[in-house]
Amino acid sequence: MKYTDGGVCAPLGFKAAGIHCGIRHNRVKKDLALIVSEVPCACAGLFTRNRVKAAPVLLDMETVKSGRCQAIIANSGIANACAPGCMEAAEAMQKTAAEHLSIPSSAVLVGSTGVIGQPLDLAPIEAHMEELIADLSHSAEGSDAAANAIMTTDTVKKEAAVEFELAGHTVHIGGISKGSGMIHPNMGTMLCYLTTDCSIRPDLLKKSLKSVCDRTFNRISVDGDTSTNDSLLILANGMADNSMIVSEDEDFSVFTENLLDLCTTLARNMAKDGEGAKHLITCTVSGAKNEEQAEGLAKSVISSTLTKAAIFGCDANWGRVLCAMGYSGIDFDTAKTDICFSSSAGRISVCKDGCGLAFDEDLARKILEQDEVVIEILLHEGDASVTCWGCDITYDYIKINGDYRT
Amino acid sequence: MKYTDGGVCAPLGFKAAGIHCGIRHNRVKKDLALIVSEVPCACAGLFTRNRVKAAPVLLDMETVKSGRCQAIIANSGIANACAPGCMEAAEAMQKTAAEHLSIPSSAVLVGSTGVIGQPLDLAPIEAHMEELIADLSHSAEGSDAAANAIMTTDTVKKEAAVEFELAGHTVHIGGISKGSGMIHPNMGTMLCYLTTDCSIRPDLLKKSLKSVCDRTFNRISVDGDTSTNDSLLILANGMADNSMIVSEDEDFSVFTENLLDLCTTLARNMAKDGEGAKHLITCTVSGAKNEEQAEGLAKSVISSTLTKAAIFGCDANWGRVLCAMGYSGIDFDTAKTDICFSSSAGRISVCKDGCGLAFDEDLARKILEQDEVVIEILLHEGDASVTCWGCDITYDYIKINGDYRT
Repeated sequence: MKYTDGGVCAPLGFKAAGIHCGIRHNRVKKDLALIVSEVPCACAGLFTRNRVKAAPVLLDMETVKSGRCQAIIANSGIANACAPGCMEAAEAMQKTAAEHLSIPSSAVLVGSTGVIGQPLDLAPIEAHMEELIADLSHSAEGSDAAANAIMTTDTVKKEAAVEFELAGHTVHIGGISKGSGMIHPNMGTMLCYLTTDCSIRPDLLKKSLKSVCDRTFNRISVDGDTSTNDSLLILANGMADNSMIVSEDEDFSVFTENLLDLCTTLARNMAKDGEGAKHLITCTVSGAKNEEQAEGLAKSVISSTLTKAAIFGCDANWGRVLCAMGYSGIDFDTAKTDICFSSSAGRISVCKDGCGLAFDEDLARKILEQDEVVIEILLHEGDASVTCWGCDITYDYIKINGDYRT
Repeated sequence: MKYTDGGVCAPLGFKAAGIHCGIRHNRVKKDLALIVSEVPCACAGLFTRNRVKAAPVLLDMETVKSGRCQAIIANSGIANACAPGCMEAAEAMQKTAAEHLSIPSSAVLVGSTGVIGQPLDLAPIEAHMEELIADLSHSAEGSDAAANAIMTTDTVKKEAAVEFELAGHTVHIGGISKGSGMIHPNMGTMLCYLTTDCSIRPDLLKKSLKSVCDRTFNRISVDGDTSTNDSLLILANGMADNSMIVSEDEDFSVFTENLLDLCTTLARNMAKDGEGAKHLITCTVSGAKNEEQAEGLAKSVISSTLTKAAIFGCDANWGRVLCAMGYSGIDFDTAKTDICFSSSAGRISVCKDGCGLAFDEDLARKILEQDEVVIEILLHEGDASVTCWGCDITYDYIKINGDYRT
């Protein structure tokens, strides 16, 4: 396996584009993305568990049921949720893309991200459909434009692709995603679109996607708010010409492992670029009885506002880590718990058997000043281990979210 | 019923004091408080549900079992949690207070609040016990000193007292409490000490306290972190000479209603003085099927970081309110949900039947600029109604918590 360029255009037969159509008043920022496969694809999707779901989420939940799709159209700026006529707008967006691509509406998935509660004006989308389709390109530039078009408060685009062998055939998986507020397990205001030229049956594609999502996007948190629009979609067009994956065999495992690697990269990058974030916080819980215990504790730590504020201040206030574990609702033995902080600047033990250790505050500060900080928790209760990712909370988070709509 | 002066010294027979003994390096801030009744009291306590509990919490949980106590000693600066020898320190604190007061150790409750993981040095406490006891006073000054001594990042002391009649006898309930970070249902880094001269059997005192706590302190949130030290204690010395409350009769109801009123005031003040807060956010969910539904939704709204950031920015971003309801895990019908914002500057409808309304942004901003903002949610599903309290998240919250230990 190796990382490669091209994002969602790395797999054979996929084109992408991203343009500014005018949903956003900012005239520079791209706000409309399109990803299309040359041929029909197997598809799978996972969606927000928020009871309030945006119209495109509700529409896609129906559309993916067939397991067959060919294109994804998505806008940023307006979430197309909780506004009059939002389902009609989502359907119209699907229909106009389908007509311009000469494929059935049922082959088009739709995504939106942005402000909740304001109507989505279809006019700029319809007026720019020809331009969008003319821009479609099977190139790194095409993926780059689409990745930029789905960004909201993201400061860097999230894009990655991997390449690996499956029984002598070269297979690619590419992806683009966006954060960066309302990010919380499960998923966030997260859109993530994955493409692959792998040949795989839709039910197994879904199974692979679900297992990967549980270990990646469901293990990140920016602010504890789960959005109305989260969508993770994958299109698999089979153009790698591998023999179709029809069981949970070795090929399925290889595909899933590669998908896991790719999605881990995208998820980490989303946490790292959380709104206003200065630090990526990685929390690893080891020595757990089982994955469930480890995950529950790690999620509570990365979601703790006080822990996030301490990391922002480069303050080794590990008591907040133990406190967050304590209110997680997960059973563990405090008296056997060890905590370390580590980063590229070193590693320091701050808590042993649930009690504070004397430690070098200067070294601790140097460790926490790095961009990526690891909170290592060792339970001494078993062999399971889980990693979750979050970010610090900063003045900029407050600034960004104190006036998001204007 | 009327509010009166004197805090925990308003009830007959209670004295209080607060001094600087040197647990904190800041030489001005009081850090040691004592509340004592002239005679033995019925007592009851409620404690944090965090699995990691500070030593004084564990000790008090044992001590209150007898239902009889006479004094509370509490320090700020050090939480006395997760440090070597913390249980020994809590027991020593209990013992030294008991010896100086000439009462049994089993009659003394102990509280601590401050940094987790650092050992509590008993020396300054023991060295200042005589001074503390000499300062005990049945006066507003005594309660004021104790209220100040338990404050950490609180910017204003929380103190209140009520007076009412019970079958011809004047009864008082007084209280002091402190916030103001790690505040989350259930309770926060909250210490709240209540006194009353009411005569009431310990089991009924506990029942009354529990019912009131569920409707007050368990309905506030500052930052979603539930601390290791939360304690709510009440001492009832019977000196009002009312006939002892021994059943859930009319007197029990009157006592509980007054306790509810007092605790609502203390809880609101804790939310209002949340770390760095500029706004008190009151969220009322009405028209609910039952209290459980209303409470689950209201708690999710006041705990939403994005909603808190929007209120900080005076931005009527009601989509975040609906979004927080949606991820609460509580069932409700989005399509019947109405949302209004109100304050002393007016009232504005922003969402009707789950869809956004056009509204006057200038008026909305004026409403949200007031110190106290109300988010009114109407479900149209029944008659139950619940109010919860929170605060906005501000630059100062980040500043305070980025470097709390130094």
